[in-house]
Amino acid sequence: MNKIKVAVLGATGMIGQRFVQLLEGHPYFELAGLYASERSEGKRLGEALKIRDHTFKEESLDMRIETVDPVAIARSSRVAFSGLPSGVAKETEAALAEEGVAVFSNASSHRMREDVPLLIPECNPDHLKLVQEQSTFGNGGFIVTNANCSTTGIALPLKVLDDAFGLDMAVVSTYQAISGAGYPGVPSLDIMGNVIPFIGGEEEKMETELAKVMGTIQEGRVVASPVQMLVNCARVPVIDGHLESLVLRMDKDPSTEDVIKTLGEFRGEPQRLGLPSAPLQPIITRSEDDRPQPSLDAYAGEPARARGMSVVVGRVRKKDNYIKMFVLSHNTLRGGAGGSVLNAELAVSRQIL
Amino acid sequence: MNKIKVAVLGATGMIGQRFVQLLEGHPYFELAGLYASERSEGKRLGEALKIRDHTFKEESLDMRIETVDPVAIARSSRVAFSGLPSGVAKETEAALAEEGVAVFSNASSHRMREDVPLLIPECNPDHLKLVQEQSTFGNGGFIVTNANCSTTGIALPLKVLDDAFGLDMAVVSTYQAISGAGYPGVPSLDIMGNVIPFIGGEEEKMETELAKVMGTIQEGRVVASPVQMLVNCARVPVIDGHLESLVLRMDKDPSTEDVIKTLGEFRGEPQRLGLPSAPLQPIITRSEDDRPQPSLDAYAGEPARARGMSVVVGRVRKKDNYIKMFVLSHNTLRGGAGGSVLNAELAVSRQIL
Amino acid sequence: MNKIKVAVLGATGMIGQRFVQLLEGHPYFELAGLYASERSEGKRLGEALKIRDHTFKEESLDMRIETVDPVAIARSSRVAFSGLPSGVAKETEAALAEEGVAVFSNASSHRMREDVPLLIPECNPDHLKLVQEQSTFGNGGFIVTNANCSTTGIALPLKVLDDAFGLDMAVVSTYQAISGAGYPGVPSLDIMGNVIPFIGGEEEKMETELAKVMGTIQEGRVVASPVQMLVNCARVPVIDGHLESLVLRMDKDPSTEDVIKTLGEFRGEPQRLGLPSAPLQPIITRSEDDRPQPSLDAYAGEPARARGMSVVVGRVRKKDNYIKMFVLSHNTLRGGAGGSVLNAELAVSRQIL
Amino acid sequence: MNKIKVAVLGATGMIGQRFVQLLEGHPYFELAGLYASERSEGKRLGEALKIRDHTFKEESLDMRIETVDPVAIARSSRVAFSGLPSGVAKETEAALAEEGVAVFSNASSHRMREDVPLLIPECNPDHLKLVQEQSTFGNGGFIVTNANCSTTGIALPLKVLDDAFGLDMAVVSTYQAISGAGYPGVPSLDIMGNVIPFIGGEEEKMETELAKVMGTIQEGRVVASPVQMLVNCARVPVIDGHLESLVLRMDKDPSTEDVIKTLGEFRGEPQRLGLPSAPLQPIITRSEDDRPQPSLDAYAGEPARARGMSVVVGRVRKKDNYIKMFVLSHNTLRGGAGGSVLNAELAVSRQIL
Repeated sequence: MNKIKVAVLGATGMIGQRFVQLLEGHPYFELAGLYASERSEGKRLGEALKIRDHTFKEESLDMRIETVDPVAIARSSRVAFSGLPSGVAKETEAALAEEGVAVFSNASSHRMREDVPLLIPECNPDHLKLVQEQSTFGNGGFIVTNANCSTTGIALPLKVLDDAFGLDMAVVSTYQAISGAGYPGVPSLDIMGNVIPFIGGEEEKMETELAKVMGTIQEGRVVASPVQMLVNCARVPVIDGHLESLVLRMDKDPSTEDVIKTLGEFRGEPQRLGLPSAPLQPIITRSEDDRPQPSLDAYAGEPARARGMSVVVGRVRKKDNYIKMFVLSHNTLRGGAGGSVLNAELAVSRQIL
Repeated sequence: MNKIKVAVLGATGMIGQRFVQLLEGHPYFELAGLYASERSEGKRLGEALKIRDHTFKEESLDMRIETVDPVAIARSSRVAFSGLPSGVAKETEAALAEEGVAVFSNASSHRMREDVPLLIPECNPDHLKLVQEQSTFGNGGFIVTNANCSTTGIALPLKVLDDAFGLDMAVVSTYQAISGAGYPGVPSLDIMGNVIPFIGGEEEKMETELAKVMGTIQEGRVVASPVQMLVNCARVPVIDGHLESLVLRMDKDPSTEDVIKTLGEFRGEPQRLGLPSAPLQPIITRSEDDRPQPSLDAYAGEPARARGMSVVVGRVRKKDNYIKMFVLSHNTLRGGAGGSVLNAELAVSRQIL
Repeated sequence: MNKIKVAVLGATGMIGQRFVQLLEGHPYFELAGLYASERSEGKRLGEALKIRDHTFKEESLDMRIETVDPVAIARSSRVAFSGLPSGVAKETEAALAEEGVAVFSNASSHRMREDVPLLIPECNPDHLKLVQEQSTFGNGGFIVTNANCSTTGIALPLKVLDDAFGLDMAVVSTYQAISGAGYPGVPSLDIMGNVIPFIGGEEEKMETELAKVMGTIQEGRVVASPVQMLVNCARVPVIDGHLESLVLRMDKDPSTEDVIKTLGEFRGEPQRLGLPSAPLQPIITRSEDDRPQPSLDAYAGEPARARGMSVVVGRVRKKDNYIKMFVLSHNTLRGGAGGSVLNAELAVSRQIL
Repeated sequence: MNKIKVAVLGATGMIGQRFVQLLEGHPYFELAGLYASERSEGKRLGEALKIRDHTFKEESLDMRIETVDPVAIARSSRVAFSGLPSGVAKETEAALAEEGVAVFSNASSHRMREDVPLLIPECNPDHLKLVQEQSTFGNGGFIVTNANCSTTGIALPLKVLDDAFGLDMAVVSTYQAISGAGYPGVPSLDIMGNVIPFIGGEEEKMETELAKVMGTIQEGRVVASPVQMLVNCARVPVIDGHLESLVLRMDKDPSTEDVIKTLGEFRGEPQRLGLPSAPLQPIITRSEDDRPQPSLDAYAGEPARARGMSVVVGRVRKKDNYIKMFVLSHNTLRGGAGGSVLNAELAVSRQIL
């Protein structure tokens, strides 16, 4: 098959550079252009390197960054992967869809729009068809979003447990990595040797986004899930990998063993379709005392293209009629650029690309 | 008044050195000896310095460490402050009480003994009288313990809210500092840029200890509080200061304002008695978006002698019929050596010392 | 004596807030106003808190920040302590001197001006008289600067050794704290778990500033010292405290013992005058294997008002005819706000204030 | 060719686990056994995981650790890669050579023995023939050592510059990663947010080892190089990657451009032989302002098997007749396990294995 030409928007940022990394050698997509704000115009990608221990090819590092221009992008690319900041994303992404570009966005701007899927292919693949409600769909343009990084990590286990045991309530505390705040993001004077118990808008996003991701489609609209969510968000001095503690109440009151087995055996639509970025095991359960840990588990996921795409669950315990556990996911891969790429792969397999 | 001679046990450790710091210039107590394992015998305190940015007096740094010997300690000291490791503490502290020494211990060994108070003077000052049940009380010897560092921090707000609104359930996630693991404690290779979602025995301790601290005394015994506790513990790369996220359900379903006012206005027995290490305001409530933080709030507490003895509460929010908040306390001061010293000050004021 | 009214410029930054901290209860000076850019106008100091584990008084936290306006400042203050960014400092400080204000500046803008003293009172107190060359001196206005933070730390031992043994060459490598870059300064994504071997302009500043500080005054001008300096600068993930490694060659080829004795016994003009911020021992020599360390030694200095004003030297060794050592100094106290305050105290004692 | 059976000694440590990582799929060697102290006997490798973000194969993680026993090892392996602690290494490695095993050791015990090569294949490949002086060589047993991690990093550029321009003096300051201290190694309470200006014995090792590595063989013995070395060592809070600042004086007084060109164009014996772990470019020179950095450059080296085997040089500057630069190398790969594996590859190519 001919590869589909794609653009990366926000190429100087943490998410944008993850897109570049994931698109190198991708079987479906071919990187046709890098775009960012005027400030970076003409710079080589290599001059604005943000990702540690990267393995970019020299040809990627030598690509020049262009100013975002929807008309120009539409001429050269069928798809745009967007890592734009929310402020800019709203208008730009809409303009791109107008121009007939399929936008897969990591920005929050359009996530809660009724006609935009908030897509996690293992959780709600059928939501993808919402794009047909978008007025631009006729000319090939549409917008698909992925969820907030801290939502995505827990959405996988929560959806699986909801389906199996009827989830009633989830109390969540987050231990979020600094890469989630973008670059330059959190000043080192604020976070080194410290925890900041606040991330603006994050708790609200997690509550509303999870309800949409876990919702069901009825008459072309998502009916939100009624699961009760109680969230406390905090930033910790970790580079990559959001850890979250969960306390769950489920209707069927499953045992610890039931929960572990159900999570570990889960396979979703991307696994059945064999999508390139789909991890063989979407939820890895660990039995050690002290896992998952960002430093050991953030990059879980096989094969190589799905590195950082598995969610890792550990310390599953039962107390009274509650299940406690820790969940880890890579916030700029599974919870960022990797999620968008997986969404686009699903769109290819469903032939809307 | 003549100052009471006191010994510090475990003087080479994190808690032991905090004891020394707190006893310098103390109005009730006079440091008579430093004790640790044989390995450190004869060393100057200054050779084994653990506390950052300390302000020890040269005469403290020059004190020599002796091997723990209950008989010798009893000869020179009326009181022993113990920062011994749990393994050693059980037998040694019992032997000291036999010798007529009043032991104020930070170790967990005797905390759950029926006749030993698990004392936080703002929460349960009346538990102190449990010492009269100890067989050694007659000869002046007894043991008083303070709670685990992560228990202590939340015990203050939870007890105050329980008294005011009837606490029903508390879901807690901890962000615990590395000084809580003692020295050498956590290897840097494990914790730098990482979070470890496990602290051995900590979740169980928090659940059982909180029930005892919040319990009531009936017929010379503590009847445990029935509050439902669901705890997830994690270690973060912070030197001092345990942060904890709380989700609470209370019978009277108070408003955010009620909760903030009740916590901020609380004054306990140590405040009424004007004990030297009692902070003027035991629970400080902060209204900023992003507080409390270990780096800014761990040392909260006035006057100078009560530095690190206030508990700081922030981000009080209501969702449905739950109250969410973050709580910070200094784990080796309020939750460690400072707690023991405050316990001893209460004992002095109640004339059992 | 009536206290002298002083203004703090750049009050929202790291240096500005150190000024506030040092001026609380100062015996000579009284804080009359806080100034910063328009962006912060009207904010309480407490809203923009940068210094960890601060102990500001509530009345300081409640002071409102005003926009920098030289005429207004001149009306209310005799002295301005400047922590302004270099870009802004040049013009503003000159305008203040025009208005008759004595400016003690931490900014680099005027440091190399022929008629401006680059003052470290223990090293070159006589340089203060350079202010008489300034055209504004007649109306009471003048500018005194302190040296770059990494220059100041080593200037003390180098000047003392130069006087005693004739310093010929100094090879320096720095391990600089992030507070030296101001706020927001270094992004956490760049520095956590990393070292950045570059600080723009720093190596050049250290070489030229040290030559001026160690220079002699001849005919109203500073003749630069000819000591050969070879400097490599790097940023490390430390909050406060610049560590520097030194390899020195001296004409008289002193022994290790000579060097240690000479440094430890040094007392300068501020010590003779008993200036309030002068540490009793300006250079503390440590004999332990592994000192000085930022976490243990950054705040060295007695009495309390001189905390962080001593320079700490350790690991003095001889190899061939070279002396090797490590030097630590607090970059925002001795190397920043504390240096400026000490300069102003010298000016008071010399009656030019 | 049949693969050579190899054992890894010290398999629970940082270096041992790097050996396992490097031996997975190695074209010359086949991992036949993992050995460590009795304490770890019977454990799975996966239970004692130390390396972050590892990508071990499950079959490696499932290997069981055996107690070190020279006779048993000799039965199953022709080669032993040793990551033993120095205390144990001396006797064990000698015993293995007695049993006819070729030992490639990262331990310091035998490095300075006259008949043992201290080998860095790009620097001194001919030193390998020293093994023929070993009494055990007849039965196939011998010992080859690699240099200390901080020595190795600078040995490459220093040797190349010595050959080209005649190196006279090198002043070195190190910024060393914590993985260099092994596991558990440096307590987090000591190093987080801190720098420790001391690593026991390191400065002496660097001086003597570099003289041997850069020495020439005359009549079967190494004549040490007379280059003057002045070293200051410090530990910084970095996981992997030793950074070092250099100030060099060379007889021919080369320009900055000469130095950069000479370093970047250098290719050594391993490159000519195409050894599997040899990086295509042994010394990578970077022209950015702020490189090399541990977080971006520690894993430099192509192809994939040579990841972390290139040394990265940056910030080459000239001042007077001195050249200044920063050098970075991966301390447990190029400066540890990778160095030993490259040594063994050279031995294979020279047919002494």
